[in-house]
Amino acid sequence: MKDETVLLGHGSGGSMMKRIIDDVFAKAYGSEELAQGDDAATLPAPAPGERLAFSTDTFVVTPHFFPGGDIGRLAVCGTVNDVATSGAVPKYLSIGMVLEEGFPMSDLERICATIARTAEEAGVHVVTGDTKVVNRGHGDGIYINTAGIGLIPEGRDLSGASCKPGDAVIVSGTIGDHGITIMSQREDLSFSTALKSDAAPLNHLIARVLDAAPDVRCFRDPTRGGLASTLNEFAEQSGVDIVISEDDVPIKDAVRGACDMLGYDPFQVANEGKMVCVAPADQAQAVIDAMRAGRYGEDAAVIGTIEESRPERGHKVLLETGFGSRRILDMLVGEQLPRIC
Amino acid sequence: MKDETVLLGHGSGGSMMKRIIDDVFAKAYGSEELAQGDDAATLPAPAPGERLAFSTDTFVVTPHFFPGGDIGRLAVCGTVNDVATSGAVPKYLSIGMVLEEGFPMSDLERICATIARTAEEAGVHVVTGDTKVVNRGHGDGIYINTAGIGLIPEGRDLSGASCKPGDAVIVSGTIGDHGITIMSQREDLSFSTALKSDAAPLNHLIARVLDAAPDVRCFRDPTRGGLASTLNEFAEQSGVDIVISEDDVPIKDAVRGACDMLGYDPFQVANEGKMVCVAPADQAQAVIDAMRAGRYGEDAAVIGTIEESRPERGHKVLLETGFGSRRILDMLVGEQLPRIC
Repeated sequence: MKDETVLLGHGSGGSMMKRIIDDVFAKAYGSEELAQGDDAATLPAPAPGERLAFSTDTFVVTPHFFPGGDIGRLAVCGTVNDVATSGAVPKYLSIGMVLEEGFPMSDLERICATIARTAEEAGVHVVTGDTKVVNRGHGDGIYINTAGIGLIPEGRDLSGASCKPGDAVIVSGTIGDHGITIMSQREDLSFSTALKSDAAPLNHLIARVLDAAPDVRCFRDPTRGGLASTLNEFAEQSGVDIVISEDDVPIKDAVRGACDMLGYDPFQVANEGKMVCVAPADQAQAVIDAMRAGRYGEDAAVIGTIEESRPERGHKVLLETGFGSRRILDMLVGEQLPRIC
Repeated sequence: MKDETVLLGHGSGGSMMKRIIDDVFAKAYGSEELAQGDDAATLPAPAPGERLAFSTDTFVVTPHFFPGGDIGRLAVCGTVNDVATSGAVPKYLSIGMVLEEGFPMSDLERICATIARTAEEAGVHVVTGDTKVVNRGHGDGIYINTAGIGLIPEGRDLSGASCKPGDAVIVSGTIGDHGITIMSQREDLSFSTALKSDAAPLNHLIARVLDAAPDVRCFRDPTRGGLASTLNEFAEQSGVDIVISEDDVPIKDAVRGACDMLGYDPFQVANEGKMVCVAPADQAQAVIDAMRAGRYGEDAAVIGTIEESRPERGHKVLLETGFGSRRILDMLVGEQLPRIC
């Protein structure tokens, strides 16, 4: 596109906006539905009995580009993964951009190319969008909201409230990679050379798991708040305790080193391409095998079990150390690493 | 809520975020689906044959509060109206907030109360949401994205590409109210006393029109870019000319006065609670009667007709003056009034 930076007029609703839509957005991730040019995308009728899954996420990460991805990849993966956790097949995506006046058009084009590539990998279509431009000094280059619709096959009913004592807790790979990558980019730390964000669309991994282990209770991606927050949410929703074996949780040495040095708890650091899954114990191996069969699940591991709560104590997540002692793993309280997604 | 301003921790994914969700968002516009606490809302299966309509919009207006509404009312109405233009019954809404550190919690609560009230008026449920907090100086208090899903009854097929020569062009009321209200608030102009934003959910108006005039070709709300942009979009999509009778377009004196004084073209000023409708000429009166039967359509008027384009000249919107002369009504090019929605 000829303009070198984003201008206020690109959010006008007039012909400059039409041009950025045609020359940048539609060129990168155009679809039949986007081309309709109406205010709402009209989508085919779901098959009889298919329920809808609907989720949204806004992405405000800085820097916009980082090892392993960029804000565009995050924006697609985040919503695809949230939709997929319900057991839905993600189908349609909306993209709402808030651009800051002066944002380089070449950066926008690069991000849109990533959106296109990631959407293609996930098998979702961008069907509707919106563009706003805010004055210089009222944004941070680019914020991206995505909302997604998926279709849930009849009879499938996953929920974080369905965990039962005896179930196995599984994670699809190493934790903390995304949060520590972003932080180290921002602080320019040298230990980061080995690290990259794990941002990835996990809907195909989830589909494989559901084929292999049909009684899976639930999935959730441990993004902001990390693994600790996801497990505490499951404990609360299902009214159970969760006991995690610390030594079984896969963590990369570089992540562990950075956390030790900086005083972060890797269990509270964000992930963008990992999935926690709770399944009946007798299907745990099937889940692991299905995860490991694809490129985003090679380090999948059983990390713990669901237990009954002691009624006087509420619903807790307990971390069992190599020495057999147990400590409570709390939810993150405030903000550890802002703007990681 | 005890905290007086929004803090970075409210976007953490941890327990502070859980608290703002419970104490502010769910308290204002909680729903059964939001209460599920899963990453994606799961929604009932549509009736057989019902297609989906899907749209998104981000709202960055300043000031956040203005006569006739606030950013929360805009955020609900904007997406409800976009979904409804497809002939869908709007059902479900997502809300993604980007809050700036330091934003007053009381303002957030006020905006959430408006969201709740407007969603109730429109008959839509807020079923999923997301909250990000950006550092001070990287936002403008609050940006709100909404995405919406509606269900299109079997057999209904509206599109801006369906206008035919001979059709009537109808607008549901006076134009320019919203844009001039925002501008006058920002500039503190005294002529503004009589003006307020027209922000309104128009799905019930559209439903009445479709009951009364089943062959309506299309609806579109003339927001950014104003009536001129909407008409030019229709002309382009349908491959037709549109001839508008200038004297028949309802414009409030205060809006006309402000436009004269400031050099704005009222046809290019944004509306938030108006609908343009194209219908066969013999159903135009039924459309007008249906619009006028409700509170948001009292000033509805037929303003023009669809004509065949002259092939050598492209597809034009022509404004016919009281003296019988015709001038071309162009689409807005750049930005006239930034941040009006």
